[in-house]
Amino acid sequence: MNEFELIQRLTRSLPTNKSVVVGPGDDCAVLDFGLPDRLLLFKTDAVVEGIHFAPGTPAEKIGHKALGRCLSDIAAMAGTPAAALVTLALPRNFEPEFVEGIYSGMNALARRHDVAIAGGETTTNPERMLISIALLGSAPRGKSVLRSGAEVGDAIFVTGELGGSLAGKHLEFEPRLVEARWLAQNFSIHAMLDVSDGLAGDLPHILKASRVGAQLNSPAIPISREARRAAKAESSTKTPLLAALRDGEDFELLFTVASKDAVPLLDAWKAQFPNLELSCIGKITDGEGITIRDKEGVRPLSAHGYEHFS
Amino acid sequence: MNEFELIQRLTRSLPTNKSVVVGPGDDCAVLDFGLPDRLLLFKTDAVVEGIHFAPGTPAEKIGHKALGRCLSDIAAMAGTPAAALVTLALPRNFEPEFVEGIYSGMNALARRHDVAIAGGETTTNPERMLISIALLGSAPRGKSVLRSGAEVGDAIFVTGELGGSLAGKHLEFEPRLVEARWLAQNFSIHAMLDVSDGLAGDLPHILKASRVGAQLNSPAIPISREARRAAKAESSTKTPLLAALRDGEDFELLFTVASKDAVPLLDAWKAQFPNLELSCIGKITDGEGITIRDKEGVRPLSAHGYEHFS
Repeated sequence: MNEFELIQRLTRSLPTNKSVVVGPGDDCAVLDFGLPDRLLLFKTDAVVEGIHFAPGTPAEKIGHKALGRCLSDIAAMAGTPAAALVTLALPRNFEPEFVEGIYSGMNALARRHDVAIAGGETTTNPERMLISIALLGSAPRGKSVLRSGAEVGDAIFVTGELGGSLAGKHLEFEPRLVEARWLAQNFSIHAMLDVSDGLAGDLPHILKASRVGAQLNSPAIPISREARRAAKAESSTKTPLLAALRDGEDFELLFTVASKDAVPLLDAWKAQFPNLELSCIGKITDGEGITIRDKEGVRPLSAHGYEHFS
Repeated sequence: MNEFELIQRLTRSLPTNKSVVVGPGDDCAVLDFGLPDRLLLFKTDAVVEGIHFAPGTPAEKIGHKALGRCLSDIAAMAGTPAAALVTLALPRNFEPEFVEGIYSGMNALARRHDVAIAGGETTTNPERMLISIALLGSAPRGKSVLRSGAEVGDAIFVTGELGGSLAGKHLEFEPRLVEARWLAQNFSIHAMLDVSDGLAGDLPHILKASRVGAQLNSPAIPISREARRAAKAESSTKTPLLAALRDGEDFELLFTVASKDAVPLLDAWKAQFPNLELSCIGKITDGEGITIRDKEGVRPLSAHGYEHFS
């Protein structure tokens, strides 16, 4: 049983109550605590040594990534983060300076986005370090962007460039909080998420939640320099496009808007964020699944679609 | 460097913002999100296999304990829990039935207290299972009970019985949510926490936060049957009183009220909760530290005070 099947099984019959607006399955839980103008966004995310970061990674970058992943999920709903709790599970012989370095990276990112570190705890995990962050934020009522609102005909956009994140970006990315709020304030964003499992892995979440399909325009997919560089390595069997579709941890925003908004959005974006690329990479279609169009025609991209390109 | 020293070092310069009413150092973080009548309570707590529960512990009890510990911290502030997120870090060869058992124990406890499980995540921790719970609740403005309000002359109370929790209670305890809210609604509770590290370990948190001392009345300390039974074992060198002072994970409420409220509180409690013991175990004093009075006189209880009794 893989992670996905297990989660399906576990989330079948979870306890709920009137505070829950959106439960498991979106980027954050959305809660109604009775604030007249806002809903709460609630998220946890963990990084584990040897899995999400290699032993030997600088402490500051570990702290940055641990908090950054959570912030990226708040961004995916166009929310504003407010307060975090940090759970630090440490081997018994930890070096205090290393732990301080983790906090130093976390604190710097938190300060940039006005997030309080309001507490947490330390516990023991003998074999490896694990950091779990719980994050509380909010979004204006009716303005938190879910995965489920994509409509047939929508244009699909992605920020930044995709692929090759392991070369460094996965430890240094800036969560797209400012950009996401600007989007939601200025345009009607139908569906959004942050790309953490690769475009081919995450776009299906929007499609499934919205019960639609998608056609991607291959030449429009923004491929990072790192993905191109990696593809040139002699040992590589991965094309740059495959890297952009498949590599995880880009932490870019993937979203859809009505097609009539596509050009005004691109124009306004360029004026607002001249240093961050925004690409229209395809459109939402009737039916199921993803197809991809290139100069040779249109091909289906299966659930494990990137395999077609390897 | 021990856990306590590390936390002191880390919490010196954490980022904060206007949402934070109470940051690190109390049972929960207290946040102001602009609700007119309530403040939010925010808490995380983790249990680790081999540390907080033994390998072979029934899955349902692990789930109960993981959520129960967090609920107990909401109780310690006289709050009402609303929604939890569950982070499950699992070895790769986990048994799905075991994970379902964990959720079964957690869900049953959550339903009893009207807590939603609003999401979470699974990740990999190769060597052992770790469960981290993030919990969001609330308390009426001005009614969340901190550790810092104890006053000289206050009577010190504890619910239930202390010691011997490892015999089973640590996996089965019921968080004192109902009792704590009743206390805060009907009496002016000056300071409160839940006893997780033993009376001798936790009372100092109230004393330090309130800048007062305490005198305990040894015969009044409620010693559990399990602590007495363990003391009778041939190999035991631990007296029942030592167990009550030192054993952790009782998850009972420890609180102080003005001395004039002590008798009315005891009377009202007996009528309200006839099946749960409430004991007045001492008083808050001027100065620092804890003394303990028995038939032989008054002795100091040092920071590691239980050693006097071993």
